[in-house]
Amino acid sequence: MSLPISIRNLINHFSSLPGLGQKTSERLVFYLLKQDKNFLASFAENLLRIKDNVKNCALCGSLTEQNLCSICNDSRRDHLAICVVAELSDIQSLEKSREFNGVYHVLNGYLSPTEGINPENLRIKELLERINNNRIKEIILALNPTIEGETTVLYLTKLLKRYNIKITKLARGLPQGSDLEYADEVTLANAMKGRTQV
Amino acid sequence: MSLPISIRNLINHFSSLPGLGQKTSERLVFYLLKQDKNFLASFAENLLRIKDNVKNCALCGSLTEQNLCSICNDSRRDHLAICVVAELSDIQSLEKSREFNGVYHVLNGYLSPTEGINPENLRIKELLERINNNRIKEIILALNPTIEGETTVLYLTKLLKRYNIKITKLARGLPQGSDLEYADEVTLANAMKGRTQV
Repeated sequence: MSLPISIRNLINHFSSLPGLGQKTSERLVFYLLKQDKNFLASFAENLLRIKDNVKNCALCGSLTEQNLCSICNDSRRDHLAICVVAELSDIQSLEKSREFNGVYHVLNGYLSPTEGINPENLRIKELLERINNNRIKEIILALNPTIEGETTVLYLTKLLKRYNIKITKLARGLPQGSDLEYADEVTLANAMKGRTQV
Repeated sequence: MSLPISIRNLINHFSSLPGLGQKTSERLVFYLLKQDKNFLASFAENLLRIKDNVKNCALCGSLTEQNLCSICNDSRRDHLAICVVAELSDIQSLEKSREFNGVYHVLNGYLSPTEGINPENLRIKELLERINNNRIKEIILALNPTIEGETTVLYLTKLLKRYNIKITKLARGLPQGSDLEYADEVTLANAMKGRTQV
């Protein structure tokens, strides 16, 4: 059956999103066909609006509808501890852990010379400005434990050495609920290296 | 971080779709934020248009922008063999198998007395009309091998008995690429019962 063009187009839009295949996209569109027009209209409106009302926070670079985001605007947060993340979505993940009460700084990516992503493509200048303008106590490098992540950690550590700031990175070790038997060697080595007294 | 309201709304729209959780929906919306406005606009437009231009085929009940769908309109198909399916999306799946050259009939669901879905809620009257108006040779009941599916097969078989038509249902057996060791008893019993000569 060749589906009507508007439906095929919508399936293509869904399947262009990361992690959604052809079959899942078809299922989603067939589900949407059963919804009422109001639902589709408000879905469409929100798709259009996410870019209209949203800008980047003038300090950390995350998303906001004002000048500063809700975290940078919050006086109960510790503005002298900056957690550096690569992507906007990392803030979401870290906030859910409820372990950090400082503020964030979004780099907008990882250093990757092979892909042509150099320091000037990331929000590093903005980070240095924040450090120069405030008496920052700690910079936490919350970057992925990958080659790009480690490269970025190395670069930033060298760059920040001249400031008298504590620089930390997220602990490496066994993930909660995992099994020693299935852990890879690097994870195990990191877990051993970083062992803590009980 | 409390995200801007338009973004939270869009995440909620995605996570209301079947199979998309909160985390996946967040990832999709963060991906969409990186796309240009044209992409979002055409995505939104197609969301609005799927209901505008699309109606149900006057014969089989599947989707079309004309009066008849592309299959019911196709003179190369065998219009005397009707494959009865529960959902629109089942037509897609069966067409991909390229094994059937007849036409379809969408019931719009399964009989389920416990959920209040009775024969009059399904497109059964329309099926009988098609049978009365044409000399149909075969009705293939392509329904899920579930309790609802079997209930619907039983009901339709009884109902169609008074017509002199061959009534068939899809074969039960081992799925391609599967392993005897992991097949459940019912599947194995069906595979044994339906064994074919080689």
